[in-house]
Amino acid sequence: MPVATIDWVKNAVRIIDQTKLPNKTVYKDIKDIKSMQRAIKRLEVRGAPAIGVAGALGVLLGIGDRDYKDHVAFKKRLDYVISYLGSSRPTAVNLFWALERMRKCAKTNARRPVSEIRKALLKEALAVLREDRIICRKMAGYGASLIKDGDAILTHCNAGGLATVDYGTALGVIFKAHEDRKRIKVFADETRPLLQGARLTAWELVREKIDVTLICDNMAASLMANGKINKVFVGADRIASNGDTANKIGTYNVAVCAHYHSIPFYVVAPVATFDISIKKGDDIPIEERSGDEVRKILGRDIAPRQVKTYNPAFDVTPHGLISAIITERGIIRPPFSAIRHIIK
Amino acid sequence: MPVATIDWVKNAVRIIDQTKLPNKTVYKDIKDIKSMQRAIKRLEVRGAPAIGVAGALGVLLGIGDRDYKDHVAFKKRLDYVISYLGSSRPTAVNLFWALERMRKCAKTNARRPVSEIRKALLKEALAVLREDRIICRKMAGYGASLIKDGDAILTHCNAGGLATVDYGTALGVIFKAHEDRKRIKVFADETRPLLQGARLTAWELVREKIDVTLICDNMAASLMANGKINKVFVGADRIASNGDTANKIGTYNVAVCAHYHSIPFYVVAPVATFDISIKKGDDIPIEERSGDEVRKILGRDIAPRQVKTYNPAFDVTPHGLISAIITERGIIRPPFSAIRHIIK
Repeated sequence: MPVATIDWVKNAVRIIDQTKLPNKTVYKDIKDIKSMQRAIKRLEVRGAPAIGVAGALGVLLGIGDRDYKDHVAFKKRLDYVISYLGSSRPTAVNLFWALERMRKCAKTNARRPVSEIRKALLKEALAVLREDRIICRKMAGYGASLIKDGDAILTHCNAGGLATVDYGTALGVIFKAHEDRKRIKVFADETRPLLQGARLTAWELVREKIDVTLICDNMAASLMANGKINKVFVGADRIASNGDTANKIGTYNVAVCAHYHSIPFYVVAPVATFDISIKKGDDIPIEERSGDEVRKILGRDIAPRQVKTYNPAFDVTPHGLISAIITERGIIRPPFSAIRHIIK
Repeated sequence: MPVATIDWVKNAVRIIDQTKLPNKTVYKDIKDIKSMQRAIKRLEVRGAPAIGVAGALGVLLGIGDRDYKDHVAFKKRLDYVISYLGSSRPTAVNLFWALERMRKCAKTNARRPVSEIRKALLKEALAVLREDRIICRKMAGYGASLIKDGDAILTHCNAGGLATVDYGTALGVIFKAHEDRKRIKVFADETRPLLQGARLTAWELVREKIDVTLICDNMAASLMANGKINKVFVGADRIASNGDTANKIGTYNVAVCAHYHSIPFYVVAPVATFDISIKKGDDIPIEERSGDEVRKILGRDIAPRQVKTYNPAFDVTPHGLISAIITERGIIRPPFSAIRHIIK
């Protein structure tokens, strides 16, 4: 059973507060856009597909159920809400994709009464949510076809049920292979600084009784050299039209090591993660987060306070290191020129 | 001024308890071998050269100043002490090198009264300590010749004053370049699981006002891709006769990434770190430590308790990824066939 990461319940967005996992499972009802923007920024809700859904539902919180003087006032508010929610995190394009979908929906319905535009927007946001479930299953099906009995798979960060509405992108593939009764072994990178691998991926896999071993990020290369890993599956936050992929910091490190050891490296991401307005990875905006995430762990100092830090939240894996990208429309293989045709 | 990591003070071994750094600087006097074995095992004293010295001085604690019935009883005790201290940590060969040096000293003096053998052993242990200081300076001199004004250097784990009697192996090179007024920038990997980079290396470099930036282990590849690192310097725990080098877990990961980005990767280690009885890296024993080091940070859970872990304390970097090995006898470059001639 996938985790109920995000849902629309009684005019509020119900999320699991992921900053509290794995020690506590706390559900939280978010009722206004300020709280939603903050929840995305603080990673209470995270994962590219899930923050797309959070953005879409967030628009409903932003426009609320109050009366608007006229369509101009409504449109002004909608534009503000979309821009405000978009200011939460810059890298995952799914957020902007979902917000643009909401803007388009409002535009299509622009001549109808505000109350009906609102209904149409709710329908659209719930469609984004529902579709993500179907998309997860499709990606999982394609991805699992690449997994063989006995495979030992490395994954980085969390691309599971907590990152999507259903059971994930990269982890969805693993869940599906497990459902298909393939015997697999999973290694989860802890994923510093925010430990999504240790806190979230290990939690999801233990919950489903899948054979999972937690390792520190710097151990993967050594495991690869010792023949203990034979496939890598990761998610994505934004994919440029040439296949260059931004994902959680450390993904590029894994890709370089996989390449060196001739281990296939797969990216699993829905079509909404592609940004064909961007030619290559260099143009993807990379979020830099507070140095305290590096300097502290669970709020406690691990280094002298005076030390400088560098804390990019993502890195870019060039398409040359990627064996295939698995989407809900099928598997895209190098050269990635097919991206422009598949993603419209 | 190098840190006073280890010294012989009033018949005790005085160490900084490194598990308490950087938050507290606590000196500890160790008076018996059980405490010494535990201090090495728990990493209160750590770093290949420093645990060599700890082993040599530990022998004095083990034989104590009591009377022995005869030379046979003394020899029996000495053998036990050496074997017990050697059981603390398996990978760093400097410990065994120092213990063998003590055994040899006792053998050379075997015909003299026990009280005189004890004096000779103390003299020998203090020689190991004193020589390490001179060796650090020599390695630093050779190593610094490789550093240019403006270099940006990555280092992993702690190979500094806290790992030696003087100012370190890899960090010694950095200190020397800084003394020579070369403008350098240092990136320190935090080095999970035990965070020696964050806790110790950052502390040493901040203390000397060297420009240091702390990063998580998984960020180095991304920095390399962005041209922010142009040299890597690390220490070593055991070097096989073909140049394969065991060092802190994650070193191999850095070496693979440096190789991929054509960045020189240098190992700095005294002659005592070479084990020419071993042909290649595969034969180096790798210590595996408790899974709780991965599952917890600073004593707090970061993952579900049921999750399996893997926690090798070291990995092996094959000689093909090493640009040069810097010793107190000079710089050894590939092919490393010179090792057998230089290390006798």
